[in-house]
Amino acid sequence: MPDLPTCEMLVLERKYSRLYVTINRPDSRNALTAEVVAELTAVVEAVAPDRTIRTLILRGAGGTFCAGGDIKGFRASFTAPPPEPGQLDPIAVSNRTFGDFMIKFDALPQTVIGVIEGAAFGGGLGLVCVTDIAICTADTRFALSETGLGIPPAQIIPFVVRRIGQTTARRLALTGTRFKGDHAGEIGLVHYVAADSAELDATLNKVLNDIGRCAPGANAATKNIINAMRSAPLESVLDDASEAFAQCMRGDEGKEGVAAFLGKRPANWVEKVD
Amino acid sequence: MPDLPTCEMLVLERKYSRLYVTINRPDSRNALTAEVVAELTAVVEAVAPDRTIRTLILRGAGGTFCAGGDIKGFRASFTAPPPEPGQLDPIAVSNRTFGDFMIKFDALPQTVIGVIEGAAFGGGLGLVCVTDIAICTADTRFALSETGLGIPPAQIIPFVVRRIGQTTARRLALTGTRFKGDHAGEIGLVHYVAADSAELDATLNKVLNDIGRCAPGANAATKNIINAMRSAPLESVLDDASEAFAQCMRGDEGKEGVAAFLGKRPANWVEKVD
Amino acid sequence: MPDLPTCEMLVLERKYSRLYVTINRPDSRNALTAEVVAELTAVVEAVAPDRTIRTLILRGAGGTFCAGGDIKGFRASFTAPPPEPGQLDPIAVSNRTFGDFMIKFDALPQTVIGVIEGAAFGGGLGLVCVTDIAICTADTRFALSETGLGIPPAQIIPFVVRRIGQTTARRLALTGTRFKGDHAGEIGLVHYVAADSAELDATLNKVLNDIGRCAPGANAATKNIINAMRSAPLESVLDDASEAFAQCMRGDEGKEGVAAFLGKRPANWVEKVD
Repeated sequence: MPDLPTCEMLVLERKYSRLYVTINRPDSRNALTAEVVAELTAVVEAVAPDRTIRTLILRGAGGTFCAGGDIKGFRASFTAPPPEPGQLDPIAVSNRTFGDFMIKFDALPQTVIGVIEGAAFGGGLGLVCVTDIAICTADTRFALSETGLGIPPAQIIPFVVRRIGQTTARRLALTGTRFKGDHAGEIGLVHYVAADSAELDATLNKVLNDIGRCAPGANAATKNIINAMRSAPLESVLDDASEAFAQCMRGDEGKEGVAAFLGKRPANWVEKVD
Repeated sequence: MPDLPTCEMLVLERKYSRLYVTINRPDSRNALTAEVVAELTAVVEAVAPDRTIRTLILRGAGGTFCAGGDIKGFRASFTAPPPEPGQLDPIAVSNRTFGDFMIKFDALPQTVIGVIEGAAFGGGLGLVCVTDIAICTADTRFALSETGLGIPPAQIIPFVVRRIGQTTARRLALTGTRFKGDHAGEIGLVHYVAADSAELDATLNKVLNDIGRCAPGANAATKNIINAMRSAPLESVLDDASEAFAQCMRGDEGKEGVAAFLGKRPANWVEKVD
Repeated sequence: MPDLPTCEMLVLERKYSRLYVTINRPDSRNALTAEVVAELTAVVEAVAPDRTIRTLILRGAGGTFCAGGDIKGFRASFTAPPPEPGQLDPIAVSNRTFGDFMIKFDALPQTVIGVIEGAAFGGGLGLVCVTDIAICTADTRFALSETGLGIPPAQIIPFVVRRIGQTTARRLALTGTRFKGDHAGEIGLVHYVAADSAELDATLNKVLNDIGRCAPGANAATKNIINAMRSAPLESVLDDASEAFAQCMRGDEGKEGVAAFLGKRPANWVEKVD
């Protein structure tokens, strides 16, 4: 088992091939300070090459997923000196850091589940958009609240557009309207809406058992093909996908998967939640 | 307050930062003649650089939003002489004019609301697709009716694809099927479906109050980021967005927004519908 | 009436301008062997240039649409020799063949209807994604089941992403979860969900009558514009679309369509299901 970074703001818990990552700043409703983002980035960088971790589960401590950016911290920006001519504005550089993290998180080969409760505002809503499967409680509150503060959701809205399309993204960002879990399900921001926290945990376990039946290498290859669709032409994506298919088929997973199917037995990679 | 163009086909009404634009040809159910499109284009060009206008509200007079292209006018096309070799067909040039208008309307920095009643056929359905927030009554009728007339929805279907995705766009365009408000909401063509015209107006006011809480400069910056997602790579969008973020944060809106949030008071840009 | 290929795996039935294509291997639940894909490809290539065929209806014999790839056939892959250095892996070449077929099927100028019953797994779900209009029964079972076999849905997932967006595609592919017709309708995979097979046939006839009112040349031009949106910039799509508009308007269909509309009579291309 490879090393995971030591974290002050996050709680990391490993169970078999699953890594549970909990943002643990409940006093500030898990607001995204520079420190939280730095620790999340370090975890993502450590996990990405680690084939023993198949699934990453992201949640927030204290019943709130993430209330967004650190607004008190924003105030410090005003005293930052303006950039020298020809230099990048340090406020822009700092803001861009979050986009870098989002790109890396979105590209993780592991399957990522978001478990959303309480509130997901601003950057918290952005985090939801880079999970593969998102589960929330019906009373979770969501909003793209930035423009009400006089700033654009700069590093967030591109991922919202990818997640739910530009039509709904425009409405949410230009009105800042608040909405709850059921509507989040209707617009495709989340996939499952649970009545309460007991159902939330039960849904998480069901999803984990589904993922546990999928071969980890095949899942990573599939996620890679989906990500490639964003920037490469279709023919080229299909070319690369056919080589990934051949590698999986000739590898241990392909042989085991077909043999298990024909033998009507579980494949050797199946992992159940205990 | 800058000059708005004098219009014959449109009624323009200004209230504080809001511009109400009404297509006013109820006898032809607000069909899109060349004159109507020319006046809409002139309004869009006048409004785009005007920071005192924050919101544009588009509707149709006489209980109908817009019944589409001017079919009687189409007949005149048949008598137009065919193009000289090497020349563009004047029918194509005239058709393309509508696409130019759609691009400009879609790119307005202002937040655009469509208030849809009665019917939105063909080009009228196209107009719905370039609003930021669309509200309709449940009994509004919609259709992409062009192919039933023997012509493609040439300057319209690309904006329909952007709005609701190619899957539903294919079905609507290749069947010409009629549908009503509830279905328009389900497929994401509109965002709010009102039971009747009283609820339509109440929903409009609620949306206007939401927009009134959002900083106008931040909204314009946000819309610009969303539009950039269509043609620029993600990294480049995030770079530009981080600079827009820094400008807003250092500007009057960022300072006022954060101060108002921490002071638990409304920001100075908040505008309520009276 | 041009020649259609002789098929062993497919049943072809022509009625007026409609071609009914039925995969006819009910013993294997219409699994996609290399032979089935080769015959489907031959049909698509024969139909594409044939303007007398307006609509293609795809279904499966024996109450099942298509249970996916031929898993027993996959086993033969393991004995295929690995590629020589610098050569393509024959498994990759074989896999890529399905993507070529999907591209051609997706680009058919004819309007394509999928009639889905029983099951649509893996490649069968992929076929659904390249229909223009998909109709299923409520009890149809769907799944992207590949990763459970240790392989990625390599030539399928790009078309799933196009059909239903990356958000839902990620969830379906990375969990392999099974779902039924109602959910297929909610996520936009299919357009109509019928209670039973009688309603399935009635819905098909309704859709055929809708298509029968649309001019075939205008429909082909429209489908071409929608497809162009995937790879060309908007301005260029609008330019080409304006020329397609002029050609239709000056052609027989445009004259007939406008005359029929103004004369309040059906156009001469209208075809009703008997």
